[in-house]
Amino acid sequence: MSASTRDSGVRGAGRMAGVLAPVLTPFGPDLAPDAPRWIRHCRWLLDQGCAGLAIFGTTSEANSLSVDERERLLEQILAAGVDPGRLVVGTGCCALPDTIRLTRAAVRAGCAGALVLPPFYYKSVSDDGLFRSFAEVIERVGDNQLCMYLYHIPPIAQVGISAALLERLLAAYPRAVAGMKDSSGDMENTRAMIARFGGSGFDVFAGSERFLLATLRAGGAGCITASANVNPAAIARLYREWRSPDADAQQTALDAVRSALERNAVIPALKHVVAHFAGDPAWRTVRPPLVPVAENRGAALVTELSGRGFGMPGLRT
Amino acid sequence: MSASTRDSGVRGAGRMAGVLAPVLTPFGPDLAPDAPRWIRHCRWLLDQGCAGLAIFGTTSEANSLSVDERERLLEQILAAGVDPGRLVVGTGCCALPDTIRLTRAAVRAGCAGALVLPPFYYKSVSDDGLFRSFAEVIERVGDNQLCMYLYHIPPIAQVGISAALLERLLAAYPRAVAGMKDSSGDMENTRAMIARFGGSGFDVFAGSERFLLATLRAGGAGCITASANVNPAAIARLYREWRSPDADAQQTALDAVRSALERNAVIPALKHVVAHFAGDPAWRTVRPPLVPVAENRGAALVTELSGRGFGMPGLRT
Repeated sequence: MSASTRDSGVRGAGRMAGVLAPVLTPFGPDLAPDAPRWIRHCRWLLDQGCAGLAIFGTTSEANSLSVDERERLLEQILAAGVDPGRLVVGTGCCALPDTIRLTRAAVRAGCAGALVLPPFYYKSVSDDGLFRSFAEVIERVGDNQLCMYLYHIPPIAQVGISAALLERLLAAYPRAVAGMKDSSGDMENTRAMIARFGGSGFDVFAGSERFLLATLRAGGAGCITASANVNPAAIARLYREWRSPDADAQQTALDAVRSALERNAVIPALKHVVAHFAGDPAWRTVRPPLVPVAENRGAALVTELSGRGFGMPGLRT
Repeated sequence: MSASTRDSGVRGAGRMAGVLAPVLTPFGPDLAPDAPRWIRHCRWLLDQGCAGLAIFGTTSEANSLSVDERERLLEQILAAGVDPGRLVVGTGCCALPDTIRLTRAAVRAGCAGALVLPPFYYKSVSDDGLFRSFAEVIERVGDNQLCMYLYHIPPIAQVGISAALLERLLAAYPRAVAGMKDSSGDMENTRAMIARFGGSGFDVFAGSERFLLATLRAGGAGCITASANVNPAAIARLYREWRSPDADAQQTALDAVRSALERNAVIPALKHVVAHFAGDPAWRTVRPPLVPVAENRGAALVTELSGRGFGMPGLRT
């Protein structure tokens, strides 16, 4: 794979590569999703250099949305004219019919991919059971346009995606299984997945920009990272310039912003930062069980970021 | 509270007490819920002495069902003439709108209660966030007939219900918050919850019949237990006779059956046992990510139970 193919944000046969933002979902005062604010943020993220949008990820509070709400938002963003080829849709739910319904909706809409959590209520489930889950989704969706990215996020889902499971899935569904997002926080796992499966056109995305440079050096496809909601241009720049002499310095600068964000619960912190730089306090709203960042902690975060010269140009409308 | 009130299976103002079965959900070969088989099993459980049915619990694979599927099954069991006053409905989902929708459906149907998991995708959430979750459900359902039982099952949900959270909820919603199911597996926690909250008409159910006698001696309301799907009469008998001289011996006999069931994954094991004693192999089907018990292990389980004189009289149709 050439650097130029990567730089175009497209990998292999129409495959996504680069930096994807798991887009925050804004809510109104009644806690309903706020589609116009959301679509505005989506456009800003693409303008800032994101290769794509991973809508309905963990950072999107997607597991706090009903299936109806996710379907409706997908319809709205498509109706607004956002290119489905830039969308990877989070579709993994606890219940098989929900995962099938959302995955089918994404594929039929022409989206670039579906990012699929394993069913995560029951714990200590076997790879046999997880294989059956993903196999049922692939077979019941029954569409050879499906690009499925498996979502490995054991710190939250608790149920993970093992190499043995991936091997079985790739053997059975080499076309549908397109890659994974590794949010284990363990670069050794990311490296091992790339080394074992990367050669066959399986695209591994790091789950945090902390691992972007290491992931690209190992042969990975990019990252899908919460921080891209607020720091997209700098993260996308490192993706473009990862072979440049200052790549390590760029990575260090990204890590400093990430560390500031992580001093609070990340999703409310990101919403606080967007609210501040957009001049739009409504962005602070989160759905339960999350709670907003306390006012004083949010102010401290903004002060720290501003002190680093951080900004979100073009966000204020 | 008198023993006779308990014995009637009704506690306080129409409150549920005794042994409740979290009813297994049978599936057809296409993995769709099989309502006729399910309703037959529900009737058998009531005939065997269960005070009520906790439909859509963990044992029911309810988190593998869509909201539509749960609503449809609830409609079907009511249409079949099962008394809603015997039903406690599992309604807790990750997404607030889903929990509200199911809880509302249960209350409007006149069900005895709603058994509500906390939202369980996000981990390490605050009691503030959980309080907001339950408060939104109670307020948006907005029906003073709601009897909410909080479902504490940290080994699976990972997100639990603390005493501090309960205190806040009871202070804010003393009428709606009716009790809890404690599936922590920790009798000390159950005792502490009864001691702290039991006096105010808050009903604590153990999550396993292993703790039935200890729970009743501590002043609890009964148990909601997976094993009641296969061993209901003996568990219900201990509930009725917990003050009798042979209560400890009855508890020991219950524990032996439970131990046999726990040598395999419990839900598939229960389905295997029902399939065997009903003479109905279709009962073995589970939804992914669960997998059926291996044939040889299932046979060994049946042999062990049969050797103990275990049976399921009246189940075979």
